[in-house]
Amino acid sequence: MAKKRNLSEHIKHIGQVPGTLIYTGKKSDKDFHIECFDYTKDRIEESILLNIDDALNYKDTESVTWINIDGLKHTDKIEDIGRLYNIHPLVLEDIVNTSQRPKIDEYEDYLFVVLKMLYYDTNEKLIVEQVSFVLGKNYVLTFQESEGDVFGTIRERLRLCKGRIRGLKSDYLLYALIDAIVDNYFSIIETLGNKIEDLETELFAGNARENINVEVQQLKREILRIRRAIFPLREIINRIEKNENKLIYKRTITYYRDIYDHLIQVSDNIDIYREMIWSLMDMYMTTISNRMNEVMKVLTIIATIFIPLTFIAGIYGMNFEHMPELHYKYSYYILWGLMIILFVAMLFYFKRKKWL
Amino acid sequence: MAKKRNLSEHIKHIGQVPGTLIYTGKKSDKDFHIECFDYTKDRIEESILLNIDDALNYKDTESVTWINIDGLKHTDKIEDIGRLYNIHPLVLEDIVNTSQRPKIDEYEDYLFVVLKMLYYDTNEKLIVEQVSFVLGKNYVLTFQESEGDVFGTIRERLRLCKGRIRGLKSDYLLYALIDAIVDNYFSIIETLGNKIEDLETELFAGNARENINVEVQQLKREILRIRRAIFPLREIINRIEKNENKLIYKRTITYYRDIYDHLIQVSDNIDIYREMIWSLMDMYMTTISNRMNEVMKVLTIIATIFIPLTFIAGIYGMNFEHMPELHYKYSYYILWGLMIILFVAMLFYFKRKKWL
Amino acid sequence: MAKKRNLSEHIKHIGQVPGTLIYTGKKSDKDFHIECFDYTKDRIEESILLNIDDALNYKDTESVTWINIDGLKHTDKIEDIGRLYNIHPLVLEDIVNTSQRPKIDEYEDYLFVVLKMLYYDTNEKLIVEQVSFVLGKNYVLTFQESEGDVFGTIRERLRLCKGRIRGLKSDYLLYALIDAIVDNYFSIIETLGNKIEDLETELFAGNARENINVEVQQLKREILRIRRAIFPLREIINRIEKNENKLIYKRTITYYRDIYDHLIQVSDNIDIYREMIWSLMDMYMTTISNRMNEVMKVLTIIATIFIPLTFIAGIYGMNFEHMPELHYKYSYYILWGLMIILFVAMLFYFKRKKWL
Amino acid sequence: MAKKRNLSEHIKHIGQVPGTLIYTGKKSDKDFHIECFDYTKDRIEESILLNIDDALNYKDTESVTWINIDGLKHTDKIEDIGRLYNIHPLVLEDIVNTSQRPKIDEYEDYLFVVLKMLYYDTNEKLIVEQVSFVLGKNYVLTFQESEGDVFGTIRERLRLCKGRIRGLKSDYLLYALIDAIVDNYFSIIETLGNKIEDLETELFAGNARENINVEVQQLKREILRIRRAIFPLREIINRIEKNENKLIYKRTITYYRDIYDHLIQVSDNIDIYREMIWSLMDMYMTTISNRMNEVMKVLTIIATIFIPLTFIAGIYGMNFEHMPELHYKYSYYILWGLMIILFVAMLFYFKRKKWL
Amino acid sequence: MAKKRNLSEHIKHIGQVPGTLIYTGKKSDKDFHIECFDYTKDRIEESILLNIDDALNYKDTESVTWINIDGLKHTDKIEDIGRLYNIHPLVLEDIVNTSQRPKIDEYEDYLFVVLKMLYYDTNEKLIVEQVSFVLGKNYVLTFQESEGDVFGTIRERLRLCKGRIRGLKSDYLLYALIDAIVDNYFSIIETLGNKIEDLETELFAGNARENINVEVQQLKREILRIRRAIFPLREIINRIEKNENKLIYKRTITYYRDIYDHLIQVSDNIDIYREMIWSLMDMYMTTISNRMNEVMKVLTIIATIFIPLTFIAGIYGMNFEHMPELHYKYSYYILWGLMIILFVAMLFYFKRKKWL
Repeated sequence: MAKKRNLSEHIKHIGQVPGTLIYTGKKSDKDFHIECFDYTKDRIEESILLNIDDALNYKDTESVTWINIDGLKHTDKIEDIGRLYNIHPLVLEDIVNTSQRPKIDEYEDYLFVVLKMLYYDTNEKLIVEQVSFVLGKNYVLTFQESEGDVFGTIRERLRLCKGRIRGLKSDYLLYALIDAIVDNYFSIIETLGNKIEDLETELFAGNARENINVEVQQLKREILRIRRAIFPLREIINRIEKNENKLIYKRTITYYRDIYDHLIQVSDNIDIYREMIWSLMDMYMTTISNRMNEVMKVLTIIATIFIPLTFIAGIYGMNFEHMPELHYKYSYYILWGLMIILFVAMLFYFKRKKWL
Repeated sequence: MAKKRNLSEHIKHIGQVPGTLIYTGKKSDKDFHIECFDYTKDRIEESILLNIDDALNYKDTESVTWINIDGLKHTDKIEDIGRLYNIHPLVLEDIVNTSQRPKIDEYEDYLFVVLKMLYYDTNEKLIVEQVSFVLGKNYVLTFQESEGDVFGTIRERLRLCKGRIRGLKSDYLLYALIDAIVDNYFSIIETLGNKIEDLETELFAGNARENINVEVQQLKREILRIRRAIFPLREIINRIEKNENKLIYKRTITYYRDIYDHLIQVSDNIDIYREMIWSLMDMYMTTISNRMNEVMKVLTIIATIFIPLTFIAGIYGMNFEHMPELHYKYSYYILWGLMIILFVAMLFYFKRKKWL
Repeated sequence: MAKKRNLSEHIKHIGQVPGTLIYTGKKSDKDFHIECFDYTKDRIEESILLNIDDALNYKDTESVTWINIDGLKHTDKIEDIGRLYNIHPLVLEDIVNTSQRPKIDEYEDYLFVVLKMLYYDTNEKLIVEQVSFVLGKNYVLTFQESEGDVFGTIRERLRLCKGRIRGLKSDYLLYALIDAIVDNYFSIIETLGNKIEDLETELFAGNARENINVEVQQLKREILRIRRAIFPLREIINRIEKNENKLIYKRTITYYRDIYDHLIQVSDNIDIYREMIWSLMDMYMTTISNRMNEVMKVLTIIATIFIPLTFIAGIYGMNFEHMPELHYKYSYYILWGLMIILFVAMLFYFKRKKWL
Repeated sequence: MAKKRNLSEHIKHIGQVPGTLIYTGKKSDKDFHIECFDYTKDRIEESILLNIDDALNYKDTESVTWINIDGLKHTDKIEDIGRLYNIHPLVLEDIVNTSQRPKIDEYEDYLFVVLKMLYYDTNEKLIVEQVSFVLGKNYVLTFQESEGDVFGTIRERLRLCKGRIRGLKSDYLLYALIDAIVDNYFSIIETLGNKIEDLETELFAGNARENINVEVQQLKREILRIRRAIFPLREIINRIEKNENKLIYKRTITYYRDIYDHLIQVSDNIDIYREMIWSLMDMYMTTISNRMNEVMKVLTIIATIFIPLTFIAGIYGMNFEHMPELHYKYSYYILWGLMIILFVAMLFYFKRKKWL
Repeated sequence: MAKKRNLSEHIKHIGQVPGTLIYTGKKSDKDFHIECFDYTKDRIEESILLNIDDALNYKDTESVTWINIDGLKHTDKIEDIGRLYNIHPLVLEDIVNTSQRPKIDEYEDYLFVVLKMLYYDTNEKLIVEQVSFVLGKNYVLTFQESEGDVFGTIRERLRLCKGRIRGLKSDYLLYALIDAIVDNYFSIIETLGNKIEDLETELFAGNARENINVEVQQLKREILRIRRAIFPLREIINRIEKNENKLIYKRTITYYRDIYDHLIQVSDNIDIYREMIWSLMDMYMTTISNRMNEVMKVLTIIATIFIPLTFIAGIYGMNFEHMPELHYKYSYYILWGLMIILFVAMLFYFKRKKWL
């Protein structure tokens, strides 16, 4: 379980000098990978860097530089980047510690934002990947746990100079990147919604009892994980929008407000799905219990009708020598009549009492 | 389900340049429709425009102009309006994205308000339609998803110069329009109240078990949807009332405070209905469970009384050669006596124990 | 139901010009009734006015005038009063709309307070009557839905010059009137407390199951209504106490603080009664369920003991030709012995298992 | 019930002139009792006063005077004290109205504090006694409902000049008195803790079902009462600590902060006990229900095994003339064999299904 | 139970002069133990002091001194330390009163912080040990209840001059010590997570019913205790981070923010475990109840099928003289046929109704 792993990793930290970089993500042997875009309104350069020092010449120009790092395992290379861009060791520690909560930290020269990218893997399992952003005056650094992201359209817009993106500064690039992640949340919660509706359909079809119980628990936990990834983000965007920060231009604030609105929509949807799951569970429990009651009642009624009848039959099964009824010619037929009357009367009584 | 559709629509957005207009409402082929009122205290002009450019001559006059747009599908025409009135692209995006949460955004020259118009369609299904307002110095733009609204009386008052409306500015017109929508909420929650009471009546008449369960869930969701449409509006009106905004004159604030009071009343009623539904469900569950218990108890008692009696009858049905009682002349009658005494004693005991 | 009526009445409003007076209270044909007290420390005049214009001569004097209006049906007369005292149309609308929430509105020359007077009618039904106050520099107007109120002692104190009331200004009169209403809340919640305790006693005596269920629901709703009438009042008094308002003298603030303390006491009591009802319901459910379990268990045990015994009797009721036991002389007695031993053993086992 | 009495007493107030003193406590005929300490660092005078006027000569000296009044029934004497120390009538009304909520009121020359002293009487019943404090520049007045308090050690410290108390001013005396009351809360919640643990022990020993239910309800109410007495006090002490008040010297603030910490500890403990009671009740319900299920299951299994067997016996008890099995010599033994096999097979099946 | 002991100890306080030192921890006879580190960037002296006066010569130097005291039983020695470092008596009282809630108090010359060190003892029992810190300009005092702590790595870093610690001031030392404690929380909640998962596994394996119930209750309490130890700490660190305090240099603030982030992570994890336990309990209850229902249903069905069959057998066991069926040759076979048909029909019916 992802949760536990992070804890175990944290324990390695105990007693370490603060600022020691310890990667706590998946131990995959993915290559370290630096992707670099440098652009102004007029030109764009795209390159795959082998070494962060190759980005040195972009550093003090006016052009905007976006450096995207995939793979956080090579902590020494992360340290190199930190040294180049003059990033505080604690920030670097947070970048490679993938159990961070979404947060924003403001430093003198840069802004540090951590958030979570969500996607479902091939087994329909929810993956939470940490993405860290460092926004400087003319650069944005992004750190991802592994390759593959939701920034494809941003790259496209950069290359093709679609929309405003090339004409604006690094703060707009940060906005565009965060927006891409938040937009992706919508597809996540749609998948979630589909799962809940499938469950609902299945439930009313009356299948797989104990299973549904387990699945509902899993969905609850999934929602919990999504909430934890998304909810702190609202506060972060709110802070960007409200606080004055010399790195975010006034012009871009409106765009951040738009992200905020989207986050509120996502949050609302999550809360609705949460309530849906709860009331689903409720309905399920009520249905189960009603059906059970129905069964028990009908069965009990059958038993109850036949027990007195069996008693009567038992009476005339006794072997007493002196039982006058036994010898009377029509006794047997009279008894059948009595029993049928009793049977019908009881049915009628139960019917009238609405027990049947 | 409306919810899901909106999500799917949002997904189309992913990767789009911000400010791209994508209509997310119902894909009905309703015509695009521009209705225009231009008035001062002394005169009023009413017209149906084919093209927004026809409104150009009203733009820089002192008279108040109300332009009502029905149908948001023709995003190009919305863009035209935006260009004419100089509206930010993100606002236009919000206007055509009908899954907005009620909100207010203040811009330099205008105020942007989104809220929800509620009504029940012919199938008693709750419809939530988004209405957006743009309040400028001397104009109000309203954008509706489709034709048909609650503004009929406003039109009447404008035409007949009833009340204050013609003598005041665009801020009062905005008030009048929002007030019409909020007043309509009262009829919505009355319908809701009727539904709940019908359910209550039906429930105590003892009908349709599983059905009620489902209906209650639907009502709960309906209340949830109404809450989500109405509750954020309180905050919006509160902000209009509290904040200073040069577009809202001090004189009109009192009227907004009145809307606020109405919203509080509506909210209170919604919360009451919510509690009523919960306690309805509670009562229902208790009633069901009590009745079930009652049934089970009575039936069990019948079984319990006859089982020992059947045992006794069984005893004398045995075929042992040496059973002296069998040969005694009055055995049978004595046994009947004993069984009747046992029967009565058990009944009496259960009665005294209040089990019957 | 009072709730629904108010909604229906509100619907009449839809599309009306704001400030249109529509009475939403009970349609009783009670007469309109104006009661007037005009007093200084030294003298008091008491009169029943037929027309509000008769109060004209009190208007600009230094003496304090209390005008009490019973019956809000004659909206034209309310409008007359409004005109005389220069009251905003929206305030008049709120006065005759009896579904207001308790609130306070501050205007330039006067203070407008709405609150709720509670009493039980002859059928032990809780009646919520709206009372509105308009506090001016030297007058207090009170508007009640119908005759009959809790101000008797105030009238007495005014007439007999008891306490401080005659020597102080209109702000103290307002205090005295509100205090009378709040004091009355104590008797309301005492009645409520008695009802709850009666229910408790009845419950433990073990009567009327389904009934109690319904009564508890009614009590819950009653508490809800009382809460809604009383809780917003705290905030109102708090605002009077905290805000500076030229109509309330500093000297009187201490008295308002006293009302606030009383309201907190009332609120505390209401919350206690609420918790009591909940735990009452809990205890009731537990008791019912425990008793049911008890019954089922004992009955099941009886059945369980006799079923094996009946089986044994059944064995020897079989008609096989070759059953050696049947012919042995003491078989019958031995069988009896065995059955008694089995019976006792089972009883003993159940006892030891604490099932009995 | 203490609650109800207070309400009834309050009703006597209705319509009374504010500031009328009406004693709402227990109607015991305890004597009125004035105890007076007057001290400086160097000397102390202790006396029992018959009349408050005897305290007159202490009033304008520099020495600190503590006047403790037991018994609030003699409202005229309370009024005398009020007149002597120039106390507002509403304060006096609050002093004798023993249903006050803990509160603090700041007046020009004095500070008025109401709080609750808790103790268990000889019947283990929780008694809540109101204690009011009036802190003046050089005096502290304490008003108690009846004799007997937790101030014994304070008297001792005053007499023996232990600690700082004699050297400091009236604000430290107030601290010492409140501290004594708060310290006493610890013994109250220890008793409470013991009760809960006894209940826990008893519960797991499996005794007295319905009783425990009632006892738990009583404990819940007791905790509720303690919470209501203690929780508002936190806010009071916090206000003393935070606000500047010329009667409380800066030096003493640290001590009040210490009381605040103690109150937080007490509150924490109360909340823990509250959760313990809830989970106790939960465990109890689960245990009951599990045991019940266990019983029902075993009994049902016994019944279920014997019913088919009895059916088989019933078959061969039929009196058909042509039943070939009846005449076969070994039928009886074969049938026994079959029944035993069936019996064992069913047991085995139930076992494997983990039903047994 | 630790809780109760603390209360009992507190009771000893009642009536004591404030500032009296009463040790409320475990009465172990551990030796009193003073450990002293005095260091600058260039040198470090480590010593075990027998007497606090030996630390006198470190007091007014520029070097940083860390004095760690193990064992709080010898209150006289604590008083000596207090005298030497000029610490307020109430602080000393708090140090030896081990039932403190985590808190921070700011004094003129020093900062007083109380927090809780958590560890599991050899019996897997959670131990909460109080650690108090006094941060002065050039010293840190730490007070622990007993020997053994989580500061081993700090000592190591001091001795080996690893990281920044030797070059910075006492505020950084305080940070390092608190950080060590907070890091340790991660291992605590990992152990907790393991326990919960073990419980989950065990639960789904279907073992030891009542036991699990008890264990879950214990885990809930453990979480409660951990929450109470950790949650107030967030506020403390937050205050250090936010407030300006001349003892904490601006440079160190970033580090405290890092602790804050860790605490949020720990808190999040605790809340997740809490929800996991709740849903575990839910699942458990549902599973139990479903299984029980399953058992009851199957058993009831068996009974229900055989009862009518037994009745039929009973009929032909009657001894009437005139029962024509008895004499018909194929009666017996026909009856068997009928009974088998009835049996199959009932099975089929139950199957179709999904009762089986």
